[in-house]
Amino acid sequence: MNLLVFEKKDLITPNCIAVHGERAQHLREVLRVRTGDSLRIGEIGGGIGCGTVAEVSAERVSITFGPLNQTSQAPSFDVILALPRPQILKRVLHTSAMMGVRHLFLIRSARVEKSYFSSPLLQPQKMFSYLREGLEQGVSTILPQVSLHQRFRGFLEEELPRATEQTSCALLAEPSAEQSLWALARSRGFRNGENALLAVGPEGGWQDHEVAAFRDHGFAPFHCGPRVLRVDAAVCSLLGQIDLLRHLGGHC
Amino acid sequence: MNLLVFEKKDLITPNCIAVHGERAQHLREVLRVRTGDSLRIGEIGGGIGCGTVAEVSAERVSITFGPLNQTSQAPSFDVILALPRPQILKRVLHTSAMMGVRHLFLIRSARVEKSYFSSPLLQPQKMFSYLREGLEQGVSTILPQVSLHQRFRGFLEEELPRATEQTSCALLAEPSAEQSLWALARSRGFRNGENALLAVGPEGGWQDHEVAAFRDHGFAPFHCGPRVLRVDAAVCSLLGQIDLLRHLGGHC
Repeated sequence: MNLLVFEKKDLITPNCIAVHGERAQHLREVLRVRTGDSLRIGEIGGGIGCGTVAEVSAERVSITFGPLNQTSQAPSFDVILALPRPQILKRVLHTSAMMGVRHLFLIRSARVEKSYFSSPLLQPQKMFSYLREGLEQGVSTILPQVSLHQRFRGFLEEELPRATEQTSCALLAEPSAEQSLWALARSRGFRNGENALLAVGPEGGWQDHEVAAFRDHGFAPFHCGPRVLRVDAAVCSLLGQIDLLRHLGGHC
Repeated sequence: MNLLVFEKKDLITPNCIAVHGERAQHLREVLRVRTGDSLRIGEIGGGIGCGTVAEVSAERVSITFGPLNQTSQAPSFDVILALPRPQILKRVLHTSAMMGVRHLFLIRSARVEKSYFSSPLLQPQKMFSYLREGLEQGVSTILPQVSLHQRFRGFLEEELPRATEQTSCALLAEPSAEQSLWALARSRGFRNGENALLAVGPEGGWQDHEVAAFRDHGFAPFHCGPRVLRVDAAVCSLLGQIDLLRHLGGHC
């Protein structure tokens, strides 16, 4: 935990929070905080500052803090993901918050098992705990927005146009694509600060008509070589690669 | 599972293997294989070919195969990692096999908890199951070599020279480094096909004397921006980034 993130409901006075349950236990037993220790603290949706441990008890850990006047890193990705099985989704949620995803669209595609949409993990409070852990690792206070879309066509028609109009960088990861990510980087260039919209398919990949539909919406398909990454690793690796390309800038 | 990987001991005839226990259950219940189904199959340390399911029973799944004459992707990374806690190590083992690590050196550093070296996960057979799963995901038959080094100085003096002499690309991930990975890419260039040697520190980072010691052995320290990734995500993201830089080639 590189940042302790809190919500409004954790406040017990305007400049003091109390943490209970498993989180307090983590602070006590893993991080071994003691009264008087300093730690970085941030409010979800707000700023980051310095906190001081005021009390450590069996019930709670309370932390006072000064001005939260450091700004969190802005997220710079939107990700469209064919809903993976719950064990993988947990990691993707963590990764998304840690690496700066602004909006995670979890969508249905032909190779997504319908039962995944009734997983208990999809309850907002469950997802929140993985997202918060990601923020605390990645030092950010800006919670990714997560939305569920049970109809592929409906998503493409109703939601996608709003997402694509915010970026000129819409990319479709597709192992059978003709073009590699490095060839794409040479031909199109990436701009520093540009928000990227990345679509990642299910295990087994997108179906042809799905690839065609994304193409029609301006997505550039690409592959990353012969190794097939598990969805959670693919998201992590691709966010890292796109971030690097933006920093390199221009045509590589 | 994109490839079924087997060991010599799984052979029941020269061109037929039998899979038991949890792996057979996975084939039956998750992949739902039936007699006559085709699947890609590869021998650890050997080639890849096409297999046919010969028998599915409560005890085992047996698979016959033809010539294993496709060559596996060659691994192209060596990774030095400050030994992480077991839960994270499981993921790193999977990632290493999936993304093409040749040798994973698990080392002691000042911020590594000594108890991690007595984790049951470090038994070769335990590690093997995570590595094999990574090979089966990433479509490879070349098992990473994993070695344990309980003394930092001993590792640097006795093991590191052999690893560094095999590459001109020795990189040290260090969040407090002055230079970013993209600045490094502009100044040194990466060659396609070049083996990379990457060192990743513990949670909390390397200590100053450890960074100095790696520098003395020719490592270039770099950072990846203000977000702090968990060790498993850092390894995954960095392998992806270095792979991309090698494909881009030259000075970016």
